[in-house]
Amino acid sequence: MNLILFTAAETAQPLPCTDRRAIHLLQVLRRREGDTFDAGLINGPRGKGTVVAICPESLTLSFVWATEPPPLDPIILIVGLPRPQTARDILRDATSLGVAAIHFVVTDKGERNYANSTLWASGEWQRHLIAGAEQAFDTRLPEIAHGSLLIEAITTLTPDATRLALDNYDASGPLSSQSLSAGAIALAFGPERGWSNAERATLRGTGFSFGHLGPRVLRLEIAVTAAVALMKAKRGLM
Amino acid sequence: MNLILFTAAETAQPLPCTDRRAIHLLQVLRRREGDTFDAGLINGPRGKGTVVAICPESLTLSFVWATEPPPLDPIILIVGLPRPQTARDILRDATSLGVAAIHFVVTDKGERNYANSTLWASGEWQRHLIAGAEQAFDTRLPEIAHGSLLIEAITTLTPDATRLALDNYDASGPLSSQSLSAGAIALAFGPERGWSNAERATLRGTGFSFGHLGPRVLRLEIAVTAAVALMKAKRGLM
Repeated sequence: MNLILFTAAETAQPLPCTDRRAIHLLQVLRRREGDTFDAGLINGPRGKGTVVAICPESLTLSFVWATEPPPLDPIILIVGLPRPQTARDILRDATSLGVAAIHFVVTDKGERNYANSTLWASGEWQRHLIAGAEQAFDTRLPEIAHGSLLIEAITTLTPDATRLALDNYDASGPLSSQSLSAGAIALAFGPERGWSNAERATLRGTGFSFGHLGPRVLRLEIAVTAAVALMKAKRGLM
Repeated sequence: MNLILFTAAETAQPLPCTDRRAIHLLQVLRRREGDTFDAGLINGPRGKGTVVAICPESLTLSFVWATEPPPLDPIILIVGLPRPQTARDILRDATSLGVAAIHFVVTDKGERNYANSTLWASGEWQRHLIAGAEQAFDTRLPEIAHGSLLIEAITTLTPDATRLALDNYDASGPLSSQSLSAGAIALAFGPERGWSNAERATLRGTGFSFGHLGPRVLRLEIAVTAAVALMKAKRGLM
């Protein structure tokens, strides 16, 4: 946790000592009354927090906000719903890399039960976004959708977005050799068993090109990190 | 586990049913007597295994070997010794990406106790290499060194190797903008608290250039995956 994030409502009241942020402030950062720390308002400015008082059951904090961080990179991920543990890693790591949105979509060859995981039902997924943003020293969280169909996710894309799908069978070349427009970049990753032929036709029919990451079989979370890194490098950011 | 790896000695004797590979064959792949599966000899050929007999306490397997996979990519990682859980992820994921070697080095600002972890003392580290190779459908494992000094790792590099260090302070530009020679690529990653000034001088004095992965603070394992992907893309492999 390089930056500690709060909602606006949370900054207006004492922080219970059982809260993960209070535990981090007291036990990891060893902050005492009067000490400051790096803080941020979710989707708002970064700034400094001060530990005003440490009571037995809560911390009183005050905040001074500075400027807002830059917008997220216009990279939109479309990911065939993976097993919950993989989804957790992607939520955290893709947020830390600064993508703007992730759509976890139902696919023909995916395991539909994954959509019913407590990860999604309980709202736990939001926690992993916050962890990723805190790691990256950012306040901004990507937009998340889960459980919609591939075609529904595609229809949210702007017309000028570059559309690239990962596929080892239909790829015309390495992912990094695909050319980019000046607008957003959509990256689509199939489920563990890959895209169906119907999905490949849908992707082609909606303007997607296919690229590969080489012959080695990568875990989905590694493929996502690699693909996002390649896109950021093509834009001169990495 | 996309490919199940064995040592030559292991292929000459029954496989105990408590072995992770026997459990995978019987319970995940649901193989029965006469069924085949994808197998590999560590650092040797890939081929097919056959379940010859399932006895109460062991499996009898036979093997037919085909060709050896291509050599690993000439990418050498030098990594400031990280906490054991991070090292586990890097061992597995960098192996799946196909790097040739990883040196986990003692650094000025690193936590020296990490070198005494049971991960290294017990030989557990080898398990993560095998998991990474099995994921990637490869038999080849990278060379691993741990606990040596930064300068010792550097002296193992060939003179023609491109030498790139990750550093947000001294970087001359994005990592992907650095030019590569035709030979090997060495990528150096500091510990959590970064390189010391003495280490920066050592790196510069031994031909390293500094590149960055952007202003966002990334977990080390994400930075490693991103940097390896960028190098593979520059070679036309991703």
